[in-house]
Amino acid sequence: MSTQEAYLAQVDHAISDAALDTIFRNARTMRHWQDKPVSPTLLMAIYDLMRWGPTETNITPARFHFVVSKEAKARLEPLLDESNRRQTMAAPATAIVGYDLDFASTLPKLAPRAAESLHAMLARDPEKARYMAMRSTGLQGGYFMVAARALGLDCGPMSGFDREGVDKEFFAGTQIKSYFLCNLGFGVPDSVRPRAARLGFDEVCKIL
Amino acid sequence: MSTQEAYLAQVDHAISDAALDTIFRNARTMRHWQDKPVSPTLLMAIYDLMRWGPTETNITPARFHFVVSKEAKARLEPLLDESNRRQTMAAPATAIVGYDLDFASTLPKLAPRAAESLHAMLARDPEKARYMAMRSTGLQGGYFMVAARALGLDCGPMSGFDREGVDKEFFAGTQIKSYFLCNLGFGVPDSVRPRAARLGFDEVCKIL
Repeated sequence: MSTQEAYLAQVDHAISDAALDTIFRNARTMRHWQDKPVSPTLLMAIYDLMRWGPTETNITPARFHFVVSKEAKARLEPLLDESNRRQTMAAPATAIVGYDLDFASTLPKLAPRAAESLHAMLARDPEKARYMAMRSTGLQGGYFMVAARALGLDCGPMSGFDREGVDKEFFAGTQIKSYFLCNLGFGVPDSVRPRAARLGFDEVCKIL
Repeated sequence: MSTQEAYLAQVDHAISDAALDTIFRNARTMRHWQDKPVSPTLLMAIYDLMRWGPTETNITPARFHFVVSKEAKARLEPLLDESNRRQTMAAPATAIVGYDLDFASTLPKLAPRAAESLHAMLARDPEKARYMAMRSTGLQGGYFMVAARALGLDCGPMSGFDREGVDKEFFAGTQIKSYFLCNLGFGVPDSVRPRAARLGFDEVCKIL
């Protein structure tokens, strides 16, 4: 038994080592895509899983617009950084992940006990609302990619795009702001770059 | 076969349904903790998994200080909102999750090809550096909680604390800023509140 298996054996309801490989250890950011569509059902399945992840006071501010059709792809293309265009046009689906600054309007459903006081506080302090929306949408973005990978998809997250342009083109008339993009599909095996380094535990963590 | 199982069957390397239950469907925010310690090895195992999750240009700005000892807990206690004190003092470990504004110093290791240009850009634009650090730390916070749950732990994320106070007490002399807290341990079964609602696919997502 390796060291890694030894510590996994200590816990009583861990998921399998193969599943940890799929969602973390072997998962790679993809830039080359097979010509294989992603069904609407599968996109719905990602949301169906990731929506259970925790957010502050259950505000769940993340919004997902999946760019799939040729027409929608054509609207997105000019707003991408040059280095992201080819991979995005080839991907079967691209999620525009945004945060909704108007998340307070959903609170009566999501957090009925806190809705009234939170609504009043957010109206007085839009900077606080933005901070909350961004922080929880970040968490939800993490859940989103894990869920996609858990369902057998590959992810290609990207930050190189014209955020204001995307907001204007895709989120006009709403208070949704784009946060990052994520290509989704089935990657070309062996097309990935050598894996970049990560920091060690002692460089990042402390036990106090 | 239920509808849910039917779409899972479409994909060829999804993780098991039981694993999806553990990391998403059955996972709940815990506020009551068993008197059962969390080993340093298990804390290291969380990091060992979550560090592989993608971040912008591999900057991996999240930092994790695990508050475990009585002495460290006593430093944290007065900085917590009243409603979070009791549960945090009872939890075997509390992660202070922060983002390092000085992430540029790690770029020669993490992103050698981009290090020089990114370092110069960030030095000119500290607001951009903060935005990047917060966005990727949000993603990493999501990976962190999924990894903890995948290893059999329960999570109790919290945002109610004195951020400036925590920065002063725990991150003095660094450029790390606290983002959220997360209690870790083994929750008391049946102690959770009824599950809060989530928004439906059509309220949150669009397929374009």
